Amino acid sequence: MSNEAFTPHPDRLLPADPGVRDIARSLYERMRDQPIISPHGHVDPRLLLDDEPFRDPTSLFITPDHYVNRLMFSRGVDLSELGVGRGPLDEQDSRAAWRLLAEHWHAYAGTPSRYWMEHEFSEVFGLTTGLSPQTADAMYDELAAKLAQPEFAPRALFDRFGIQVLATTDDPVDDLAPHAALAADGSFTGLVIPTFRPDKYLEPARADFVELTDALGAAAGVDTGTYDGHLEAMRIRRLYFRDHGAVSSDHAHTDPGTQRLSVEDARRLYAAARNGQIGAEDAVALRRHLLADQARLASEDGLVMTIHPAVYRNHHTGIFEKYGADVGFDIPIAVDYVHSIAPMMNDVGLSENFRTVLFTIDETVLSREIAPLAGVYPSVYAGAPWWFIDAPDAILRYRRAVSETIGYTRTSGFIDDTRAFCSIPARHDMSRRLDASHLAGLVAEHRMREEDAAAIADSLPDEQPRQVFKVDGSAYAKEN
Amino acid sequence: MSNEAFTPHPDRLLPADPGVRDIARSLYERMRDQPIISPHGHVDPRLLLDDEPFRDPTSLFITPDHYVNRLMFSRGVDLSELGVGRGPLDEQDSRAAWRLLAEHWHAYAGTPSRYWMEHEFSEVFGLTTGLSPQTADAMYDELAAKLAQPEFAPRALFDRFGIQVLATTDDPVDDLAPHAALAADGSFTGLVIPTFRPDKYLEPARADFVELTDALGAAAGVDTGTYDGHLEAMRIRRLYFRDHGAVSSDHAHTDPGTQRLSVEDARRLYAAARNGQIGAEDAVALRRHLLADQARLASEDGLVMTIHPAVYRNHHTGIFEKYGADVGFDIPIAVDYVHSIAPMMNDVGLSENFRTVLFTIDETVLSREIAPLAGVYPSVYAGAPWWFIDAPDAILRYRRAVSETIGYTRTSGFIDDTRAFCSIPARHDMSRRLDASHLAGLVAEHRMREEDAAAIADSLPDEQPRQVFKVDGSAYAKEN
Amino acid sequence: MSNEAFTPHPDRLLPADPGVRDIARSLYERMRDQPIISPHGHVDPRLLLDDEPFRDPTSLFITPDHYVNRLMFSRGVDLSELGVGRGPLDEQDSRAAWRLLAEHWHAYAGTPSRYWMEHEFSEVFGLTTGLSPQTADAMYDELAAKLAQPEFAPRALFDRFGIQVLATTDDPVDDLAPHAALAADGSFTGLVIPTFRPDKYLEPARADFVELTDALGAAAGVDTGTYDGHLEAMRIRRLYFRDHGAVSSDHAHTDPGTQRLSVEDARRLYAAARNGQIGAEDAVALRRHLLADQARLASEDGLVMTIHPAVYRNHHTGIFEKYGADVGFDIPIAVDYVHSIAPMMNDVGLSENFRTVLFTIDETVLSREIAPLAGVYPSVYAGAPWWFIDAPDAILRYRRAVSETIGYTRTSGFIDDTRAFCSIPARHDMSRRLDASHLAGLVAEHRMREEDAAAIADSLPDEQPRQVFKVDGSAYAKEN
Repeated sequence: MSNEAFTPHPDRLLPADPGVRDIARSLYERMRDQPIISPHGHVDPRLLLDDEPFRDPTSLFITPDHYVNRLMFSRGVDLSELGVGRGPLDEQDSRAAWRLLAEHWHAYAGTPSRYWMEHEFSEVFGLTTGLSPQTADAMYDELAAKLAQPEFAPRALFDRFGIQVLATTDDPVDDLAPHAALAADGSFTGLVIPTFRPDKYLEPARADFVELTDALGAAAGVDTGTYDGHLEAMRIRRLYFRDHGAVSSDHAHTDPGTQRLSVEDARRLYAAARNGQIGAEDAVALRRHLLADQARLASEDGLVMTIHPAVYRNHHTGIFEKYGADVGFDIPIAVDYVHSIAPMMNDVGLSENFRTVLFTIDETVLSREIAPLAGVYPSVYAGAPWWFIDAPDAILRYRRAVSETIGYTRTSGFIDDTRAFCSIPARHDMSRRLDASHLAGLVAEHRMREEDAAAIADSLPDEQPRQVFKVDGSAYAKEN
Repeated sequence: MSNEAFTPHPDRLLPADPGVRDIARSLYERMRDQPIISPHGHVDPRLLLDDEPFRDPTSLFITPDHYVNRLMFSRGVDLSELGVGRGPLDEQDSRAAWRLLAEHWHAYAGTPSRYWMEHEFSEVFGLTTGLSPQTADAMYDELAAKLAQPEFAPRALFDRFGIQVLATTDDPVDDLAPHAALAADGSFTGLVIPTFRPDKYLEPARADFVELTDALGAAAGVDTGTYDGHLEAMRIRRLYFRDHGAVSSDHAHTDPGTQRLSVEDARRLYAAARNGQIGAEDAVALRRHLLADQARLASEDGLVMTIHPAVYRNHHTGIFEKYGADVGFDIPIAVDYVHSIAPMMNDVGLSENFRTVLFTIDETVLSREIAPLAGVYPSVYAGAPWWFIDAPDAILRYRRAVSETIGYTRTSGFIDDTRAFCSIPARHDMSRRLDASHLAGLVAEHRMREEDAAAIADSLPDEQPRQVFKVDGSAYAKEN
Repeated sequence: MSNEAFTPHPDRLLPADPGVRDIARSLYERMRDQPIISPHGHVDPRLLLDDEPFRDPTSLFITPDHYVNRLMFSRGVDLSELGVGRGPLDEQDSRAAWRLLAEHWHAYAGTPSRYWMEHEFSEVFGLTTGLSPQTADAMYDELAAKLAQPEFAPRALFDRFGIQVLATTDDPVDDLAPHAALAADGSFTGLVIPTFRPDKYLEPARADFVELTDALGAAAGVDTGTYDGHLEAMRIRRLYFRDHGAVSSDHAHTDPGTQRLSVEDARRLYAAARNGQIGAEDAVALRRHLLADQARLASEDGLVMTIHPAVYRNHHTGIFEKYGADVGFDIPIAVDYVHSIAPMMNDVGLSENFRTVLFTIDETVLSREIAPLAGVYPSVYAGAPWWFIDAPDAILRYRRAVSETIGYTRTSGFIDDTRAFCSIPARHDMSRRLDASHLAGLVAEHRMREEDAAAIADSLPDEQPRQVFKVDGSAYAKEN
């Protein structure tokens, strides 16, 4: 088989034109070995606290990764065959899932999922084989053997990956004990910080809104039976997070509306929601007000507000009922940032402490809305491409869409947004290669001086996200 | 005149970079001579049944082609001068229209219309001249002479073009006799299959809704005075089409909404529509329900449902009244697929027999909605660019927008969607060249292995549309 | 400092591939020295009438340019430090503002603002230094010295720039005396023509609607207390403008809606607006009717109607109250041209005298709406990229989005749309380089013959806008 031996090309993702590639290579060299700053992601902190070895290749690469699952499902593979919705797979089922991946591997050609995994196979695990039905078993065995070795345990990889900062995403009622333990552990030098993710506590239409807000109140030691109590509880929990190292909060509602209600209306609607008597429109109005409250709290406590809006969650009800959320049935929709955040920007957009990073999967708002907003409000940054568009062509489109309006200093820096721990270096490396390619194109067309491109390359991987996310201000920040 | 001698360049549409072009050439070689599968188009089946020679160059290239007419109209040419809205032109008027095309030919530089016609002039008709006012008459004569020869009659061209499957688009009340006759004709080896296009029978706001549904009932032998009769008539006519070789139905409403009504409401609104007493909003609600019915029927009979939505038809009323539909005044609008098809997907999206291909002229939904939908639902495929965006740059944008999420196996394969029979090979060839260019770029940037690109190139022209459209399951399918 | 010596590269913006660059260079050569036709912009005509020297580098390059200010503001610089909202700065404050620009100059790398200024520094003022904190003072001094020399006065530059036509933007009540004086001045050979910009007189929701319409009536000598008077006053003032050389009117409302009311409703709503008693929805309805009136008047008087819609003006109220309009807080929103202009197109879209140029910052409508409209209506042209998207990558996206549908003859030609007089040649030159690059790409991929590309290059800078804007029909038109 010609595809059995395989190593990713050292010039992958760099431009094909030899002259431009030379420029890109030298820009990439400036970025390649910078540390990894990951200010937004979904790795479980217990992974690093417990430092248990990864169980097997399938639970590492397939089962939890909806990027991988969704494409196989669309090709007729049952999600349960991939381990979704089941407990840990035994060796036989795990290997069977792996063989399914190999069987469908050709359908991933050109996707970032395959790109990242091939990077991981090679650069993290040192494999020199391409995945195929013929090589599946041998690769499974080789990976399983590596996973059992201490140098492939989470903390060892964390060090090897050069991760300096890793933000997790956490529930407002979480006690953040793993973060505290890691921060207190002198043998662990990385910075693992929580992120305040209050979405579900801001959705009055949820059937479990009372239970949720009760739990919030319990965590905060405040009666959340009233709107004022809810606001106070949020204030308290945000500060708790900030005291446990958090530098940002994350918000992912169907729309990023921030229209405020009068206090009276907020109280009235909140009471109705607690009584289970709020209508659909009022629930949206209250949710927007509660999001506006988060912005106001952010202007007090300084947590950076990241917004990931406009996804139709659980598009298929039957799948949701069978497998739960996050199995690939979340589909993006159009977003209108300009009207949605106008109330918030008028409220706190020029406050010194307030900062927001606007993400989108709807690429139309990049040149039309996000760049113009980030190019004038000191508090707004243009978030890096996310989820479906965290991929080479889309990343290049992002740079071309925003940098003519805002250059590079008003962008967020790369965000891996992943729960796939071992893919983190692959993702950051991809981003660095693409930024090098983008900048090299500008240099080659004499649109940017090479020295300016070099300075930008120097700043993008580390300095930019560190500054945008106020990382050095984290309560858990350590000396580098 | 320097532009008198002209032959399209053998490397046209391939990338300019010499290294990338070499890769593209070898990928194109793999696709160039594959057969043509055309699972969606608008050629009249009688063209092949009757096998009459084409009348003259104008009626072949100009009068029926709204791509060509609209640009000349925008430049001040009266549609009637091009033969639109008139019967067959005499030789003098036909030649005058041809001269108009030559006079405006320079304004078509860079458009696919010119590209396709230049391909046809050269590769179908063997001309070696570029069109210009100086060459117009000679080219007209040369083309007219060829058209009179038997090797330029429709069936001869069908064979020469290598068309294996040609789908037409047909009215649900059509008896499909031409298709049956062609299928029964042992001397004709191609597969010419109908497509079920029920649009107008699903639009209760039409003034002729009663006449239309009466006609539908007559064709089906069912009383369509009630909603239940309408549904039954549709079921019967769809099966009639399937029995006559159809593999798909086509749907082109202003929006692709599929929200179901209760059966009671459907019956009530249908009755109101039959009485000419349905309001505008109710008409839309009923139309969406009737489209949802088509999906449900599709999950029973297995016809692939293609959706071509979101075009504002007949934008200028005066033109419509004078010339009728399809003369260039149809303008695309924005589409929202995610909400529109959610009811349909929840109803039949996971049914084994159901399949839908989503087309768009609104490019914003490619990365945002269509790719995420096609990348998880086994029943959804991303349709190839269509109409205004069936052109080189747009086709490349399409590949770049969808393949990072869904690769190539979840795309429809090329659809020529044309009534211009002689342009079919030009259009398919353009698509193959562009796919070769796209894949070559990935190979050159080490984003895809050359062997994977080759395998994709091997599958795209023939295997992919054949599989997506269930061509081999056609009742008229022949042995290859 | 390596960046002290700096001259823009002669091949800037041309493609990196050596073969494509050669083609682009030769196409650019055909365009480079053509005259400048600027049919839409915001230069004050008194600049040329008075011919006073420019005051200092800051008032020339920084204070009035919201492209420049907004990015510095987003990086924490107070607008007042840049002179915004203040009278003329003294030498010390002017120099301080200049130093701020130098300090933030690196953040402009890759933006058109920096590109244009570097072009101006080099090609207009003959500087050979790159801006940096180290060079700021010396460059300030050098520029200040040049500005005092007669060859850098406005008229001398106008001649040197090769501007043949310069349109300003003017209030309907303006007496246009500067235009008349310039037209009567035999020593000034350029054509400086007004543009009719009636926006604010069409916005019944404005608090000052009565005062505005009173002023309009006074200028026209008509009682504008009624709708009929308003219409007549508009007719009169448009003709006044046409008699003073105007060839176009400009319209920039939140949406480009043109739905007509009945005359009775128009009269009633206008009366309500004059009484300060019009509701928000009615005000929008009346505004759309009044815009439709402008189109109808345009079909009578022949002024070309340019539409620049869909910007959320003054997104931050506090900034607006402190600094007024046009300081960078105008953010684009989505636009729907197809429905919006349907009434207008049905009313006058096929009238011989009517012509409209559709601009957009919402790039999604380029391939979806504007190209299809301009590719069929003889009265519609696709406007060049504007404001945030008047930048290299966006300009290339524009060409790729529209030319596959409409070629080049249905596009407006370049519009600089600027109040920054000295940037005019830089902007036109940028456009020419990009058109050369775009066309060269088509030639290199054998999608267009070199001779066709050359003919297009010959026509785009001068002939195309001259024809689209009926420049030679201006009452002030001079012999070339």
